[in-house]
Amino acid sequence: PPTGLPFDARQPDSDTIRLYPLSNYTFGTKEAQPEEDPSVKDRLRRLEEHYAQHGMRRTCEAVLVCHEHNHPHVLMLQIANAFFKLPGDYLPPDQDELPAFKNRLNDRLAPTGSLSTRAPTAESQDWDIHSTLAQWYRPNFETFMYPYLPPHTTRPKECKKLYLIRLPPGKVLSVPKNMKLLAVPLFELYDNTARYGPQLSALPHYLSRYRWEFV
Amino acid sequence: PPTGLPFDARQPDSDTIRLYPLSNYTFGTKEAQPEEDPSVKDRLRRLEEHYAQHGMRRTCEAVLVCHEHNHPHVLMLQIANAFFKLPGDYLPPDQDELPAFKNRLNDRLAPTGSLSTRAPTAESQDWDIHSTLAQWYRPNFETFMYPYLPPHTTRPKECKKLYLIRLPPGKVLSVPKNMKLLAVPLFELYDNTARYGPQLSALPHYLSRYRWEFV
Ligand SMILES: [Zn+2]
Ligand SMILES: [Zn+2]
Ligand SMILES: [Zn+2]
Ligand SMILES: [Zn+2]
Repeated sequence: PPTGLPFDARQPDSDTIRLYPLSNYTFGTKEAQPEEDPSVKDRLRRLEEHYAQHGMRRTCEAVLVCHEHNHPHVLMLQIANAFFKLPGDYLPPDQDELPAFKNRLNDRLAPTGSLSTRAPTAESQDWDIHSTLAQWYRPNFETFMYPYLPPHTTRPKECKKLYLIRLPPGKVLSVPKNMKLLAVPLFELYDNTARYGPQLSALPHYLSRYRWEFV
Repeated sequence: PPTGLPFDARQPDSDTIRLYPLSNYTFGTKEAQPEEDPSVKDRLRRLEEHYAQHGMRRTCEAVLVCHEHNHPHVLMLQIANAFFKLPGDYLPPDQDELPAFKNRLNDRLAPTGSLSTRAPTAESQDWDIHSTLAQWYRPNFETFMYPYLPPHTTRPKECKKLYLIRLPPGKVLSVPKNMKLLAVPLFELYDNTARYGPQLSALPHYLSRYRWEFV
């Protein structure tokens, strides 16, 4: 069939994201990073303490995308061969959003001196934070989060922001020993709330507005 | 609790969307617009003909957002008291994307001379197309669509693009007699694939990255 007219209005160049093959990235390991809270109950109690002292908790997570066979894959951590999560964490209440987020990403994924052949460099510690993909709100001290502020909720207890981060052509990532880093294809995440939960299974939705360039 | 540091990086002013109350908009009716295809089978056969002649079908739909009680509501059409859809349609193959999309929106929603007290004006015919929210691909001549191009699909048969459109402070909209225009709150759409289908129930995900300003 003929190719027809272009279909790319309101998708400027800045929204074309270049993806590199998974094989361009090097994965090492580093010291285990145990969960801070032994249970959901502990986690919610800590959130309550945080809220009383500092107000709404700010959490940032990174969506790192590469490709295999020209299909986008998202890098995610698997903990204890069970649940999945994106790299990122809550931010210290007294720090600015983006520097604090980069610190959290480096805590999780940057190669450490003792485990890397190279000392950390400014480049290896930097992250190209491209754009906001989503925000999830926790209205109460409960596990439920929503991708909007529920009606009549004026004081959410936590806001979790997901950022698309552009990966460079190559990068060394070190993964805590108690976790695995997996590249999960969009078609595996899509419509798979049972395995990945409501937030991760929504990633194909968030990413669908971009044009990808596979190199 | 204290209010804490801001949490708004990478969400520049251009991503703050001002929403007006539903009551700011005036809804009229106009002549019925029956479905072009009497059945799903007919619709897919017409798509096949289109593809053979013109290549991939381009479809654009509008996400029009207003608010009630400071909660975002999406305007959608309900046909025959049954299924829901966004205003929009496929584009004529020989026309540019955005003008063709605006024509389609006016076909659907602009007040007509005979039914409106005012003649159509340039302003009443214009639409502020803000940004791409999502793209859905139809890989085959089948009903399934995906929010990504499935692996090894090089020639999708249709691409449907959803655009966020900024509504002005007031507007007259005329709705074909065989349809109803409903303002559906995000909390009603969320996690409600059973009633709204995979595309409309995903709207809260797409919209979660914006900051709203309710006026
Ligand atoms: Zn704290
Ligand atoms: Zn393959
Ligand atoms: Zn979604
Ligand atoms: Zn209310």
